Amino acid sequence: MAKQKNAISPTRQEDYPGWFQEVIKAADLAESSDVRGCAVIKPWGYALWENIQAALDGMFKQTGHENAYFPLFIPLSFLEKEAEHVEGFAKECAVVTHHRLEPGPEGGLVPAAPLEEPLIVRPTSETIIGSTFARWVQSYRDLPILLNQWANVVRWEMRTRIFLRTVEFLWQEGHTVHATSEEAVDETKLILSLYAKFAQEWMAMPVICGTKTKGERFPGAIETYSIEAMMQDRKALQSGTSHFLGQNFAKAQEIKFQNDQEEEVYAWTTSWGVSTRLIGALVMTHSDDDGLIVPPRLAPSHIVLLPIYRNDEEKAEVLAYCDSLKGELESQSYDGKPVRVRLDDRDLRGGEKAWQWIKRGIPLRVEVGPRDVASGSVFVGRRDQGIKEKKGVPRDEFVATIASVLQEMQDNLFNRALTYRDENLVEITDFEEFKKYFTPKNAKKPEIHGGFAICHFVDCEEVDEMLKPLMVTPRCIPVEGEPLHRETPGKCIFTGQETTTVGIFGKSY
Amino acid sequence: MAKQKNAISPTRQEDYPGWFQEVIKAADLAESSDVRGCAVIKPWGYALWENIQAALDGMFKQTGHENAYFPLFIPLSFLEKEAEHVEGFAKECAVVTHHRLEPGPEGGLVPAAPLEEPLIVRPTSETIIGSTFARWVQSYRDLPILLNQWANVVRWEMRTRIFLRTVEFLWQEGHTVHATSEEAVDETKLILSLYAKFAQEWMAMPVICGTKTKGERFPGAIETYSIEAMMQDRKALQSGTSHFLGQNFAKAQEIKFQNDQEEEVYAWTTSWGVSTRLIGALVMTHSDDDGLIVPPRLAPSHIVLLPIYRNDEEKAEVLAYCDSLKGELESQSYDGKPVRVRLDDRDLRGGEKAWQWIKRGIPLRVEVGPRDVASGSVFVGRRDQGIKEKKGVPRDEFVATIASVLQEMQDNLFNRALTYRDENLVEITDFEEFKKYFTPKNAKKPEIHGGFAICHFVDCEEVDEMLKPLMVTPRCIPVEGEPLHRETPGKCIFTGQETTTVGIFGKSY
Repeated sequence: MAKQKNAISPTRQEDYPGWFQEVIKAADLAESSDVRGCAVIKPWGYALWENIQAALDGMFKQTGHENAYFPLFIPLSFLEKEAEHVEGFAKECAVVTHHRLEPGPEGGLVPAAPLEEPLIVRPTSETIIGSTFARWVQSYRDLPILLNQWANVVRWEMRTRIFLRTVEFLWQEGHTVHATSEEAVDETKLILSLYAKFAQEWMAMPVICGTKTKGERFPGAIETYSIEAMMQDRKALQSGTSHFLGQNFAKAQEIKFQNDQEEEVYAWTTSWGVSTRLIGALVMTHSDDDGLIVPPRLAPSHIVLLPIYRNDEEKAEVLAYCDSLKGELESQSYDGKPVRVRLDDRDLRGGEKAWQWIKRGIPLRVEVGPRDVASGSVFVGRRDQGIKEKKGVPRDEFVATIASVLQEMQDNLFNRALTYRDENLVEITDFEEFKKYFTPKNAKKPEIHGGFAICHFVDCEEVDEMLKPLMVTPRCIPVEGEPLHRETPGKCIFTGQETTTVGIFGKSY
Repeated sequence: MAKQKNAISPTRQEDYPGWFQEVIKAADLAESSDVRGCAVIKPWGYALWENIQAALDGMFKQTGHENAYFPLFIPLSFLEKEAEHVEGFAKECAVVTHHRLEPGPEGGLVPAAPLEEPLIVRPTSETIIGSTFARWVQSYRDLPILLNQWANVVRWEMRTRIFLRTVEFLWQEGHTVHATSEEAVDETKLILSLYAKFAQEWMAMPVICGTKTKGERFPGAIETYSIEAMMQDRKALQSGTSHFLGQNFAKAQEIKFQNDQEEEVYAWTTSWGVSTRLIGALVMTHSDDDGLIVPPRLAPSHIVLLPIYRNDEEKAEVLAYCDSLKGELESQSYDGKPVRVRLDDRDLRGGEKAWQWIKRGIPLRVEVGPRDVASGSVFVGRRDQGIKEKKGVPRDEFVATIASVLQEMQDNLFNRALTYRDENLVEITDFEEFKKYFTPKNAKKPEIHGGFAICHFVDCEEVDEMLKPLMVTPRCIPVEGEPLHRETPGKCIFTGQETTTVGIFGKSY
């Protein structure tokens, strides 16, 4: 049997969804739980989420948003108030119907004490937060209200995949109220820009900023903006959304105020969110057949020190060297915070330990043996380079350049992902060509297909119907300021109509 | 009509529970929601919680704990595995029975798609986390496991009070697994010491560290440790608990491992938690009849600058002064972080604005008018002093001494609370005296009664029964190292038996 070359089996080429699952497992990010469709997020995965939270939370606060917390439960009648909204979520609601357990006739416990009105475990909180805002908003002086909450939500999906679609997931949901339509639209766009900045500068993940087509909007929204990223199987992953809700929810929930002309008018609201799905996006954007690769800005630890020794004497000497090296590295600063260093002195074989850290995607692995101690150097492996491309570096140089090496890795990951996306994005002007692009070359590997197509089109149901059999969706219409935004007139490749609308199309998660 | 002297009505003397509710409302901390028993935590209240989280999270991580996240739902059968545990929680479980809504026969939506097994919304997570640990733990090399999660939990209480007892609340729950009983007990005590440190040094709230009596233990625990604080109505508030679970949960959930003698043995587990109840504790420990008082280390903002002017010229001059003052203050550091300053330039009457900040408990109010600008001074009110005791201070001095003033306030609040508690704690050696101590002097004001009593007693059901009619409970048995710990032999004041057990008794929340 041939020696296995990579840590992850199957590889991306062999079976992308299988590879994704294995990377998550090998990196110790998360695992399935005993509750159908719900995951356990393990410490390494949760630390990633904490870093994601910290970065986003800082951006939200800098732009005037405050955090708050609203109830987990939504009375059924609240959900029913906005027609499109309830239709969008009715099929995936977890319903609390009882509030006690009591011994059943056949032993064991059974639900008792039925609730007067069933409660829905929040799938999103527009309705419960909106009803609160209705109490808070009286005058234009109370506006804007700019709130965010970090919370868990539940959507009873039948097919679940860790980090991409789970029954319970963690997210942030922003909810704002404004006096004018314009202000609300500006807020929606501001958040879109923060999401894009976060995706690109922290996650090192290129995204396209755009509006969703009518058929892909959030239930109840007037306009949904999203950031769309390309994974390594060339599928699109919607990674964050920002919704302009117009006055739909304000009318359903009576969010009214007296304007400066003393007229009572409805307010304008927005909502926006990103979730632990971002961890799935991060995994699928950067990882390779040896496991996870984490961009330095989000890495729970930047560096692991791996001491290597054969006897107690060597051990003492190597560990002392590692301890002082750790201190020096931690006194360096990267991204405005101290460099994060782990010393892994567990009693495990060196190779096994190194592989664990490779699979967990730590940016830098530093091996230290007696020879490194003698020569005052370190032996460094970078996770964005081949596993075997390790090299000796003088210790002082390594410490002095650590911040720039980490930033170089961060940039490198972004550029690599951008190149990949751009290589898999084509302009298509003909429907036959479009069909060919999205038809798998090999029927046995339907997951291998084209990437993104950029095309003139008309946003209408007829086009949606033509796309269905191809399993392709319009991902977004790039907004002004987005490099892929187009204003040139052309012909809709589906209907032949004249149009200036240009969209991005792809298969998606 | 006499001028109202205080901002909060009723006062503490008039109606303590009513005062508590009004303080929360006036400070904009939280409010009731449209869901029975669930609160909305407003930005000022949530910012307090974020500061509480940051301090505790840092302590947990420094002592080797990591965060993770486990499912919101617990299958009914999991809860049933540990007999005492399920009995303790069965009466307050929110039960999810369906996972879809569909149009009902009489219009509207009704629950559809019943679940095969009902799911409980977690009241606490020992069972679901334990079942995960059972998979993770194979060998003594896998131990200890030291995890924590920040989460929401649901307990269907019938009588709720914001921050003290709500149907849904936020908390952290730590769960650890150890190879030996001794290690698990040490962990339980370590956490107790962290909770006490946090209560005393951050919340400025004196606490007594002790073990709970048998009747007051967590359902399924071998030993429950708690921190107990005295509120200003002299009632006790249990503010944090740390449980040594022995092998009870390990046996119920098959958490077994191979020890270093290659024998398969059950593990030893602990769990521990504090919740948003701490906000209630903070409110009731320090606030006065003018509203909330927040200890500086936890204050969302330390200082509010209140510009005062009569015309545009004055406005420009005063705001410029405030801006530069804000910058200078923010460049100072308190408690290892920059001083947190707000400039409140809202277009409101000065008095109204100042009162808002008094009621919100901000440590320092700084009024700046044209005369202060001219003289290079500020006019400062400290929230731990009388509302009218404001004084002029040279600006430079104010900036240079800000950290020491804040720490002085922090210490002042702690000492005040400690004095109050100690004044209301008596040693009692006779049951008649005990009864008299806990009998309200005025039948119309049953809430006015003794404080804490420290007594010799025997921890048994007979004593619990004698205490019931008095509405008094044993709060804890102070542990070694706690100043109130006693080892002298004496007579149980309830049964007359010889005993060395000395407990703290009180009415409680």
